[in-house]
Amino acid sequence: MRATSNPSGGRPYLAIPGPSVIPDPVLQAMHRPSPNIYAGELVTLTDSLVPDLKALAGTAHFVAIYIANGHGAWEAALMNTLQPGDRVLVPASGRFAIGWSEMAEALGIEVEVLDFGTAAAWDLSQVAERLTADKAHDIKAVLGVHVDTSSSIRNDIAALRTAMDAAGHPALLMTDCIASLGCDRFEMDAWGVDVMVAACQKGLMTPAGVSFVFFNDKAAEARARLPRISRYWDWTPRANPQEFYQYFGGTAPTHHLYGLRVALDLIHGEGLQQVWARHATLAQAIWAACETWGQIDAPEQGLRMNVTDPALRSHAVTALQLPAPRASELRAWLEQNLGLTLGIGLGLAPAGSPAWHGYFRLGHMGHVNGQMIMGLLGGIETGMQALEIPHGAGGLSAAAQALAAGAQG
Amino acid sequence: MRATSNPSGGRPYLAIPGPSVIPDPVLQAMHRPSPNIYAGELVTLTDSLVPDLKALAGTAHFVAIYIANGHGAWEAALMNTLQPGDRVLVPASGRFAIGWSEMAEALGIEVEVLDFGTAAAWDLSQVAERLTADKAHDIKAVLGVHVDTSSSIRNDIAALRTAMDAAGHPALLMTDCIASLGCDRFEMDAWGVDVMVAACQKGLMTPAGVSFVFFNDKAAEARARLPRISRYWDWTPRANPQEFYQYFGGTAPTHHLYGLRVALDLIHGEGLQQVWARHATLAQAIWAACETWGQIDAPEQGLRMNVTDPALRSHAVTALQLPAPRASELRAWLEQNLGLTLGIGLGLAPAGSPAWHGYFRLGHMGHVNGQMIMGLLGGIETGMQALEIPHGAGGLSAAAQALAAGAQG
Amino acid sequence: MRATSNPSGGRPYLAIPGPSVIPDPVLQAMHRPSPNIYAGELVTLTDSLVPDLKALAGTAHFVAIYIANGHGAWEAALMNTLQPGDRVLVPASGRFAIGWSEMAEALGIEVEVLDFGTAAAWDLSQVAERLTADKAHDIKAVLGVHVDTSSSIRNDIAALRTAMDAAGHPALLMTDCIASLGCDRFEMDAWGVDVMVAACQKGLMTPAGVSFVFFNDKAAEARARLPRISRYWDWTPRANPQEFYQYFGGTAPTHHLYGLRVALDLIHGEGLQQVWARHATLAQAIWAACETWGQIDAPEQGLRMNVTDPALRSHAVTALQLPAPRASELRAWLEQNLGLTLGIGLGLAPAGSPAWHGYFRLGHMGHVNGQMIMGLLGGIETGMQALEIPHGAGGLSAAAQALAAGAQG
Amino acid sequence: MRATSNPSGGRPYLAIPGPSVIPDPVLQAMHRPSPNIYAGELVTLTDSLVPDLKALAGTAHFVAIYIANGHGAWEAALMNTLQPGDRVLVPASGRFAIGWSEMAEALGIEVEVLDFGTAAAWDLSQVAERLTADKAHDIKAVLGVHVDTSSSIRNDIAALRTAMDAAGHPALLMTDCIASLGCDRFEMDAWGVDVMVAACQKGLMTPAGVSFVFFNDKAAEARARLPRISRYWDWTPRANPQEFYQYFGGTAPTHHLYGLRVALDLIHGEGLQQVWARHATLAQAIWAACETWGQIDAPEQGLRMNVTDPALRSHAVTALQLPAPRASELRAWLEQNLGLTLGIGLGLAPAGSPAWHGYFRLGHMGHVNGQMIMGLLGGIETGMQALEIPHGAGGLSAAAQALAAGAQG
Repeated sequence: MRATSNPSGGRPYLAIPGPSVIPDPVLQAMHRPSPNIYAGELVTLTDSLVPDLKALAGTAHFVAIYIANGHGAWEAALMNTLQPGDRVLVPASGRFAIGWSEMAEALGIEVEVLDFGTAAAWDLSQVAERLTADKAHDIKAVLGVHVDTSSSIRNDIAALRTAMDAAGHPALLMTDCIASLGCDRFEMDAWGVDVMVAACQKGLMTPAGVSFVFFNDKAAEARARLPRISRYWDWTPRANPQEFYQYFGGTAPTHHLYGLRVALDLIHGEGLQQVWARHATLAQAIWAACETWGQIDAPEQGLRMNVTDPALRSHAVTALQLPAPRASELRAWLEQNLGLTLGIGLGLAPAGSPAWHGYFRLGHMGHVNGQMIMGLLGGIETGMQALEIPHGAGGLSAAAQALAAGAQG
Repeated sequence: MRATSNPSGGRPYLAIPGPSVIPDPVLQAMHRPSPNIYAGELVTLTDSLVPDLKALAGTAHFVAIYIANGHGAWEAALMNTLQPGDRVLVPASGRFAIGWSEMAEALGIEVEVLDFGTAAAWDLSQVAERLTADKAHDIKAVLGVHVDTSSSIRNDIAALRTAMDAAGHPALLMTDCIASLGCDRFEMDAWGVDVMVAACQKGLMTPAGVSFVFFNDKAAEARARLPRISRYWDWTPRANPQEFYQYFGGTAPTHHLYGLRVALDLIHGEGLQQVWARHATLAQAIWAACETWGQIDAPEQGLRMNVTDPALRSHAVTALQLPAPRASELRAWLEQNLGLTLGIGLGLAPAGSPAWHGYFRLGHMGHVNGQMIMGLLGGIETGMQALEIPHGAGGLSAAAQALAAGAQG
Repeated sequence: MRATSNPSGGRPYLAIPGPSVIPDPVLQAMHRPSPNIYAGELVTLTDSLVPDLKALAGTAHFVAIYIANGHGAWEAALMNTLQPGDRVLVPASGRFAIGWSEMAEALGIEVEVLDFGTAAAWDLSQVAERLTADKAHDIKAVLGVHVDTSSSIRNDIAALRTAMDAAGHPALLMTDCIASLGCDRFEMDAWGVDVMVAACQKGLMTPAGVSFVFFNDKAAEARARLPRISRYWDWTPRANPQEFYQYFGGTAPTHHLYGLRVALDLIHGEGLQQVWARHATLAQAIWAACETWGQIDAPEQGLRMNVTDPALRSHAVTALQLPAPRASELRAWLEQNLGLTLGIGLGLAPAGSPAWHGYFRLGHMGHVNGQMIMGLLGGIETGMQALEIPHGAGGLSAAAQALAAGAQG
Repeated sequence: MRATSNPSGGRPYLAIPGPSVIPDPVLQAMHRPSPNIYAGELVTLTDSLVPDLKALAGTAHFVAIYIANGHGAWEAALMNTLQPGDRVLVPASGRFAIGWSEMAEALGIEVEVLDFGTAAAWDLSQVAERLTADKAHDIKAVLGVHVDTSSSIRNDIAALRTAMDAAGHPALLMTDCIASLGCDRFEMDAWGVDVMVAACQKGLMTPAGVSFVFFNDKAAEARARLPRISRYWDWTPRANPQEFYQYFGGTAPTHHLYGLRVALDLIHGEGLQQVWARHATLAQAIWAACETWGQIDAPEQGLRMNVTDPALRSHAVTALQLPAPRASELRAWLEQNLGLTLGIGLGLAPAGSPAWHGYFRLGHMGHVNGQMIMGLLGGIETGMQALEIPHGAGGLSAAAQALAAGAQG
């Protein structure tokens, strides 16, 4: 049982946009014997998660916890509200909006995608126009991804609700916050979201394997109108369990529950407003470095941010571009030499194509702080030096300045 | 952060029929940072699980791994083979056969249950008769639970296949081995099973949260005939992934995979035949003690095994009866005084009824050995002494004798 | 990195007289990054250990914590009180009294051993006689092992003090509680003990590596009279640190401190009186089984307890005898077949001699409870069955009865 | 049991000069039950450590492993070679040389310190002169600290041996490599070192609690001439154990041994030459940043390295200076805002004095790599920005350039 040595010789840093870095206390809490699943500590602990999850989502309504990844929660959200033949409208700004659409199609749902590309804001006037035209209210739901992990665009969910209301349309507003929950500000009830989907392995800092669907009374009524629903996905007993096993439609994900308890303690102990502010500051440091590095004579030779408008940028993930195949070269160099793993590009070029090697992403969600982000950025500048990728001077100092400013703020 | 003390003052022992005791090396392997989910070690490791899982199931065909509990795997098995309006036949000998039936019903499947009670073998002549009568082959599948965790009956799956073949019926044979895999002998291909469902938290000794559907070509053909299937449950890409993420229809259950790797190493390192033999010996020790304890003048005042015929008894779980409410009293006493948690009765009396307090179960699956079983049995005799529950003398010696004999065997 | 499988296929149980079974929360607390050793949490945590250690020892005076095993603490106790040429008196009832004597001799101290064998109480009249004869007060200390881990005799420390007082002799009373602290009742101040030595890997349930010397004002005065003392062993700064590093004469044993914090929480959370009572009950169960097993026609063919008088038996360790080489055979069989490791005999026959294979020991200290002890005893009866070692019937039932009685008490 | 949140909200980074960052596989290996200490796996594992420790030290001779911190190993080295009245010569370049001297004095050894301050190389001509003058060979040993953790000077041990040889003096050469082993090149036999002291919590990446004394035949002869030695410190049985317990003079430090096994696997898996090269590159990155930051108009207002000559700088620790009290302010700001803990200054100003707040140290030993060091340096620049500490521009880019150059090398 020889431990294998990391080529970098030190602590690896996984800076991909999920799974994110897991806090030591979360892992400690999960390293324990299986508990009784019929009575005792686990029941109390699970009950205690519910209000803390709702506070995280900004809702006073319901949450169903699934043993599943985010794709499972996508399917759960669709299964509880729609049936074959129903229609949904999907304003898209990245691969994950498309992915959710495809999942709906596979369930027999009619999907209309309004594709706004991978680098621009939604044109809400088009959304409003389509909804207004739907006099028969055939559209049962609008699916809006909050932060699209592929493009790193952060969409304006509150404005989407405003557009829907202005159109006087009764469709449900269903949102994917998988990449944003616990990172970017999100207020489910205040923003008029009916259904929200999230998972545990990003802002919630817990090993992948549990996901969530939050829903309100309007969504519950849609569920009640369904003629039939799978027992596994049915959110009703999960959100209102009479017996403990109903939380999970069977055996509980015991160890994840212990991990989540600690993760929620960390978030609410720091304070959700402070957690959001921290992510904002760290994102600004990343942007400052990337923008500075991009200031070269021939910008197309260097680093470019996928989203040019800061107002549209996620605080949790950043999609970047380098002339192909330099993005892939940079990723490989950093993993080999510095123990730093960056995310691959997703959805900005066909997978495996030459162009695909021109994209990469940084994850900066959950258990991150200033020294980690400076290590991430410092690593990138080191890699650009080593690979002779042209870049503007002073990126790291600009990042340090942004961090210093954020800390004072 | 004061650690709370267990009232028993020592190591707790959870002897419920799942989740089972987790080996320390499994927990060690899961206490680690999140890995990259796009390339590297995790990909290789996951690939390596597939042949080892198939060897465990006794199949050369396919396995799909789900982030879900056993109920999820039940649903996956149904979703990939049946559609609303299809009919299934369910010979039942316990609560879990009924549970799987109810899940099918919720999906719009017509269910016929042949209920053989909770303490007797299936009457396969009735199964054969029903299949023979089904000239139109409306019955698409027979669902047979191998070991019903509630009654602790072990059904004869090979004989069920023989009966189906004798009736010349083309229905799929679908089996639930959640409680038996890695404990009781099971040979999927040799026994003619088309679909088999299992989970990781019993014989596989890993924290709850991952489950499995094994299937053969005939089942794959049934899947191919479906007009539509949910992306999350679709076993095709999971069993034949082109990209790593397809194994799990999205983000991988990273930490569970590390745990499973170690659990499979432990099983195959010991040898599957030896693992089965170990469970057989341990079960015999439990039966020897229980039968001896039951030998009193008024047997109805004492301990009774739910399954009287040893040939029908599971090697992984044992359902027992005491005059109500003595079963519940015994469980409570053991947990409080000895740190020993036994399983509640399930399905043998209405939950919460006075009679319900007359049943309990022992789990003896997975990471168990002789000293643990002697501790379990020694604890039970201690509790019976303390609570003045009448019991025959010599139960523990009988168990020791069975263990000693098994070790020589 | 294949996990190796334990031949027993289940959880191993190490029932040797130290190191003992470590509670999961202790290991959890130790699985963490290194802390700052100059300021912060570790300093506070270490301060908090001191009163809890003193409460465990029953003293209001001083404790020095050493990074060392028990032998290191032995040496520390000698180094702080004696100098070459000083004389000590050692009433002995086992190997560890001799061991401590030899350590003293190596330091140039004159040692007088009163050897009372390995199975009988000290004859305190002999001690008193010798002290009375020492008119010049050449004897500077009496070294008394509380529980000798080799013979499993528990000596009467309070009575030793009475004898010393009756003789009007000013020697220090120095006691080794390595095997007894946190198991057998011990009251340092009430019993008039001046120096007490302990370690963390037995009743304190923490991985080996830290030990303790408790001392009172009289001992501190002896220390003050020394012309010179090694900086590492000097207990003065350790017990009265002005700077944090002085607790440990250099770098702190960081992870052990986290473990000790939890172990002390467990002990004081359960309550020290209750911890002692639990050990007493568990010991009675072991004695009941062993005495019953020993009731055969030719007792010399079977199991014999080394200490026949229950009043002299430790509650933490039990030394046993079988006709050689059956003790070694039994140990080997249990480890191979049941995952149960018993302690070797120590000091009752020359190591490696044929007779040595006739002795073994059970550890039952620290994190133990009734189901564990029944597993230990049930394992032993199983092994005796398998190896056809003659033994009286009903040993396990007798143990169960003792446990049941203790739980009611 | 609420987990407390780190104010920085992310992973803390302890960058003090020991204890260092512990690799996850080391902690994983230590999270396990206690093993048998009389036979089996632990014995084999411990045997396997010996050649790997010797390879790390560059010696073919002996190693004794102590349950103790580095101060304990200091004392062990003195105890095995010297007796009261013997004389030692100590060329000093920092606090730790003085500390070792004081420990010798407490043992009754006569100490002559040649103090060369805290920022300069030893003047070996003075050493040679003193040795030459010692015609009677009263000086029994020369104590030379390889890297003084306080000043961060790296002394030239090979040159010290040359000077001793040139003087024709038979004194033992005893070296402290606590801060350098596994970081800075060290070759015990090739450099003519007779005794070398090290510990596990720095380059060896294991929780504090175990230390080492390496020695050769000449030192063993000195030990053999001693009239008496403490059993705990005696290195003879530890280095040549006949029984397993002799390795540790009693109970083994069980969990540390598992951790050390993994740590040595990591070092030798990477390759010792590569480990040294990695530390060299990382040190150069730190120096590049610090030197650049120091380039301001009034250098005394900014950051200064304690050791100006790179040839004298440790690759494992760096002592730095800022105008008091800015060093302390910077440390506090970084811990609070970035989760980054730097080391306090040691030995360069009186503890607690106003001047003391003008010093700090960086640890960069053991489990470190480029992204960590860029995080450390990026954090420092951030703190200097926030606190308006004047510093030259481009420090981080200079560091990145050094890292990139090192990786190519």
